[in-house]
Amino acid sequence: MRISARNQIVGTIVDVTKGATTSHVRVDIGGGKIITSSITNAAVDELGLKAGGKATVVIKASDVMIAVD
Amino acid sequence: MRISARNQIVGTIVDVTKGATTSHVRVDIGGGKIITSSITNAAVDELGLKAGGKATVVIKASDVMIAVD
Amino acid sequence: MRISARNQIVGTIVDVTKGATTSHVRVDIGGGKIITSSITNAAVDELGLKAGGKATVVIKASDVMIAVD
Amino acid sequence: MRISARNQIVGTIVDVTKGATTSHVRVDIGGGKIITSSITNAAVDELGLKAGGKATVVIKASDVMIAVD
Amino acid sequence: MRISARNQIVGTIVDVTKGATTSHVRVDIGGGKIITSSITNAAVDELGLKAGGKATVVIKASDVMIAVD
Amino acid sequence: MRISARNQIVGTIVDVTKGATTSHVRVDIGGGKIITSSITNAAVDELGLKAGGKATVVIKASDVMIAVD
Repeated sequence: MRISARNQIVGTIVDVTKGATTSHVRVDIGGGKIITSSITNAAVDELGLKAGGKATVVIKASDVMIAVD
Repeated sequence: MRISARNQIVGTIVDVTKGATTSHVRVDIGGGKIITSSITNAAVDELGLKAGGKATVVIKASDVMIAVD
Repeated sequence: MRISARNQIVGTIVDVTKGATTSHVRVDIGGGKIITSSITNAAVDELGLKAGGKATVVIKASDVMIAVD
Repeated sequence: MRISARNQIVGTIVDVTKGATTSHVRVDIGGGKIITSSITNAAVDELGLKAGGKATVVIKASDVMIAVD
Repeated sequence: MRISARNQIVGTIVDVTKGATTSHVRVDIGGGKIITSSITNAAVDELGLKAGGKATVVIKASDVMIAVD
Repeated sequence: MRISARNQIVGTIVDVTKGATTSHVRVDIGGGKIITSSITNAAVDELGLKAGGKATVVIKASDVMIAVD
């Protein structure tokens, strides 16, 4: 499957923190950069996400903001 | 200003493409990775964004998805 | 690729309307229902999207609201 | 009230799963398709959402991605 | 129609700027505060949005960030 | 830091409700208007958000919808 989202970065899952309905998944994309994702527990279970696993973070361009000093 | 968004990555603007109301800004965050952002032309003008400038991409955790092979 | 987004519905592209930087893609998901998507022109080109093509609409659960009468 | 969101699909609530602050509401939109929504517990209470109730899923076009095989 | 989005603020449309596919609508919510919305041209046409008209801005809680100095 | 998000409104935090992974922060922006934000617990802790504190709500224009009667 190829998806329209402009931003797709491969990395390694650092940790998965499960809440009551929502999980936080942190992915190391290299160069000391960590991306945090907030997704459903159902998605974590279905994809079998766990620390050490390979994963791609996917972000739609319209959800990216730009900041300057 | 410090913001709640979990993902803030410093980089360099590669290019700015202006449309009628919406611009696309691409930011090189290092390691061969480019992040594409879709923002208003007004924001581009106000922040003075242009190729070569330093910029931080800002992404809320709830806008990040995870994919696996 | 499998993605965490909870909503993935297969359909047929009805039409693609290109703007200066942003395109609107409408997908018929059956039962008389049309889903409208707003994505970058770059994504339309890269995926080769055009009327009549098969496509899957992908929507993160946190982007879905609920309304009642 | 009429809203700008391009995607408004009527269905029937399948179930409501409440977490600590966030609920997941699943809506059957017909044709065997289920849409999952992640909203606040406060919204669930205020709208009186429960299994079997009629509900409309509302999705802004800029939150819809397109995937192809 | 009542919607799950936690943030619904009534105001008056200041101006509507149409692009090729995307419009920007600015709404005065009182107290000198202007909210900018980016929606499809189709929505602007369908709802008949124009300067001086009454309108409600609608924002899902998961799309709101918090910043501090 | 200046950010591209078109909507930045200063207010006072009314309350912070922490869930397992996700918090709801309500901000009084004056004129009897309250904005609700759903962010990670980690962001609440890092920014030291608590009732009575000054805070700015930040909302990207593409996340704002318009409704009319």
